[in-house]
Formats: sequence, structure tokens, C-alpha cells
Amino acid sequence: MDITPSTSDADVTQHLFTLGDATGALWHATDAATPLPQPLVLIGHGGGQHRGHPAVLARAHRCVELGFTAACLDAPGHGDRPQGDEDVRFIGELREQMTQGGPVGDLIARHNYALATAAAPEWRALLEELPTTGLVTPDARVGFWGVSLGGAVGIVLAAQEPRIVVAAVGLVGDPQLLAAGSQVTAPVEFVMQWDDEHVPRADALALYDSFASTEKSLHANPGAHLDMPTFERSSAERFLVRHLM
Amino acid sequence: MDITPSTSDADVTQHLFTLGDATGALWHATDAATPLPQPLVLIGHGGGQHRGHPAVLARAHRCVELGFTAACLDAPGHGDRPQGDEDVRFIGELREQMTQGGPVGDLIARHNYALATAAAPEWRALLEELPTTGLVTPDARVGFWGVSLGGAVGIVLAAQEPRIVVAAVGLVGDPQLLAAGSQVTAPVEFVMQWDDEHVPRADALALYDSFASTEKSLHANPGAHLDMPTFERSSAERFLVRHLM
Repeated sequence: MDITPSTSDADVTQHLFTLGDATGALWHATDAATPLPQPLVLIGHGGGQHRGHPAVLARAHRCVELGFTAACLDAPGHGDRPQGDEDVRFIGELREQMTQGGPVGDLIARHNYALATAAAPEWRALLEELPTTGLVTPDARVGFWGVSLGGAVGIVLAAQEPRIVVAAVGLVGDPQLLAAGSQVTAPVEFVMQWDDEHVPRADALALYDSFASTEKSLHANPGAHLDMPTFERSSAERFLVRHLM
Repeated sequence: MDITPSTSDADVTQHLFTLGDATGALWHATDAATPLPQPLVLIGHGGGQHRGHPAVLARAHRCVELGFTAACLDAPGHGDRPQGDEDVRFIGELREQMTQGGPVGDLIARHNYALATAAAPEWRALLEELPTTGLVTPDARVGFWGVSLGGAVGIVLAAQEPRIVVAAVGLVGDPQLLAAGSQVTAPVEFVMQWDDEHVPRADALALYDSFASTEKSLHANPGAHLDMPTFERSSAERFLVRHLM
């Protein structure tokens, strides 16, 4: 794991790193008085985003404010990672479909599932390697936070990785995720948009239903894929704090 | 409106009252420094409960802690109110069905709908009369909080009464409530139990879908009718505070 020089402000220190083919970032409190190690929140970015996207940085800073260390891995083909043939084909098809005004939910779901399947082993390798940095302990409590592509990554990862003890995910419903969903036993807060143009309502409800977790909450709100209300971000924060602190 | 002598402790003052055939209670902060008037939360009790039930008192005290005035009306046939022939018949049928181990959801839903329909005009009369006490102003912001029977009352009332500006309701799904649901425009937080033995899942989802409110959130959790997690009470509190304060 190759950690490059960090950048800091008064509140948050950021480390960029590479791990195998993957690129990522780690954030922790700059304040030397803040005791390390802290619980770790893994941030799964949305499709087209990356470790340096403003939405990811805002979420990372919020995690640090809440007392967490946070980390984000760029999904394959995202950020500074090279695009493969499949990524190029997907982007071409997506543009064509959008130009024609056709539905793109299935196309996005298929691509996101492939990315999540490829990303999960990278996140597991990250959890294995992070203790070598001295910034995360081997026994740190770990949560996952992500929606849309990040939600697919979180569900596939939580199904495989017992170190994930809580997951705030959503904006997905791909039937391909049901098998992973049924392997998830950590507490889940699952958010969906009632009128999501990319995710059929019944598919999102079926995915929530699939989780094997004793504690699982479904939160639905009206509106399209990108209309998730800001109070759901606050709710996810409280959920992570309740289970990790 | 006949308000009987109040009881007080250091934190909460309770007034019992009668209004026509209905009995009820009003709670506000005892502390003279707390400025009146405050936003008002109407508490709808569950089936078989009443204004003095421990669950209602706990909720009323919590409302006062949060800075609200609170009021509860006993539903027809509940608390000190006389039972009518229909109430007696319902209780007899309910006992018989439960003894036989049969489903009681439809029976409860039918009775609750009749009670909610009868109760709504009583709540509206209460809102009309409360300003005469000097404890609530005519322009007080009013919210409703109740589940199960209280949820049915809240939905029927919110459909008729524009003074209700926010409603935290749930644990109902009776198709008879859909017409009222489609008349509700106030922000709603609707809670359901995913495995409710009394409320079919599809009926609860259809009722949430019926609300005409721009802001409406669905919260679902696993388990039976009485298994609603305590964190949903906290969520309803935050929701009421956000809209009333």
C-alpha cells in the first residue's frame, strides 16, 4: 500500500494512496488530541464520481466531524483509474440511450453490478492493509456508507466481509443483488426513492426484503433518483454513529 | 369545554377535560419561564388505550420536554367513555377470534376506521375550543402523532383539518383509509412493520403511496405490529420538531 504525502487543514488530514490497481483516499482528524484509532467508515462513491468528488469530500469531512476515520476507493474505471473496454462500451451505450430518451436503469444496474463485483475484493484488501498504516487498528469497527453505485458496492461487500458491522446503503434494486442481499446480516439502513426513474419500486422493496439482518430499516421518499432529501444524509449519520460509537 | 383541576409536577402540568361526549387531557410545561403559546402536538392513542395510559403519558411528557404543548382525546368507547353496542360487539368478536387463533387484522381495521371517522369531528371541535383555555393560541402550529388506531385517527383528521401541518402516523393500511390518505397534504412520516400480523404489507405501502403530501417518508422495520423499534419514536420526535419549531 503506497500512501502519498498528505494534505491537511485545521480539521481534516487527507492521505491519497494506491493499493494494487486501485486508488483511494483516507481522512482522519488533524487534531493530535483526537485519540486514534477511531471507527472507520468506508465511503462508496456514486457512478461517475471518485475519491476527490465534492460529494465524497463533503461526506468524508462529515465523517471526521462525527469522530470517524473515513476511506474511499475509486471504483474500477473511475477517477484516475483507466477505463477498460467494458467501461467505454457502457459510456457509449449510456450516451446513446440518453440521447434517444430511452430508459437507462437496466444498463446502469448491469454495469454497477459488474463494478461492485470487481470492487469488493479491492475493499477487502484495503481492510487487510489499512492497519499497516498505523491509522486504523485491526479491530476497528467498520461501517459502509454509499448509494447508487456505492450502494451496490456496499451490499456485495457486506455480504462477503464480516468486518462490515453496519451499512447505510440504497438507491439500488437490481435483482442481481438479491443473492448478496440475502447474505447481509449487519444492521442496514436502506434508502430508496419512491419514483426512482432508474430503479423499479418493486425491485428496491425486494432488495430490502432480501437482507438477512435482524435490524434493517427501509426509508422511502418521493421523487427521482437524484432527489433524495438531505435529512436522509443526517439519518444515515445517526445510524452509523449508533452502531459504531 | 370543561377543564377540571390540574395536576402538576416540577416539569409537566396536566389538565383533564371534557368536551361534549369526549374526555381528554392537555399537558404543558410547569415552568413559568417557558413561554406560552407553544406548538401543539395531538397524541392519538392506540386501540384499548386512553389519555391516562402509561404509553400516552410517556409520549405527552416527552412532547413537553421537546417544547410542545400536548393533548389527547379518548377515542369513542375508550378510557372513561361509555362503550356502545358496536364496541361491545367488536370486543366480543375480537376475543372469540383470538381464542380460535384466527386473524383479527380486518376486524380491527374495520372498527378502527369507524372510530377514526367518529373521532375526527371531536378533534376538530377540540382545536376550535382550545384557544378559550388560554393555553393554546388560535394560530398555534399543530402536529399529530399516533400509530395503529391513533394512526387511523390522524389520517382521517389530517385529511379534513388544515390546521394539522404535520403528521407522524403509521401501523395502519386499511384500504378504507385510502380516500382520506389522498386528501392529506401535510408532511407525513409513516411507519410500518414489515411483518405486521394485522396489516398486510401491500396495504401499508398503498396507504403511504396515497398521501398527496410533497414531503412524505416511509419507514419500515422487520417484526410484528407491536415490535416497532424505539428509534422510530426518536425519529418521529425529530420529524415533529423539524416541522413545528
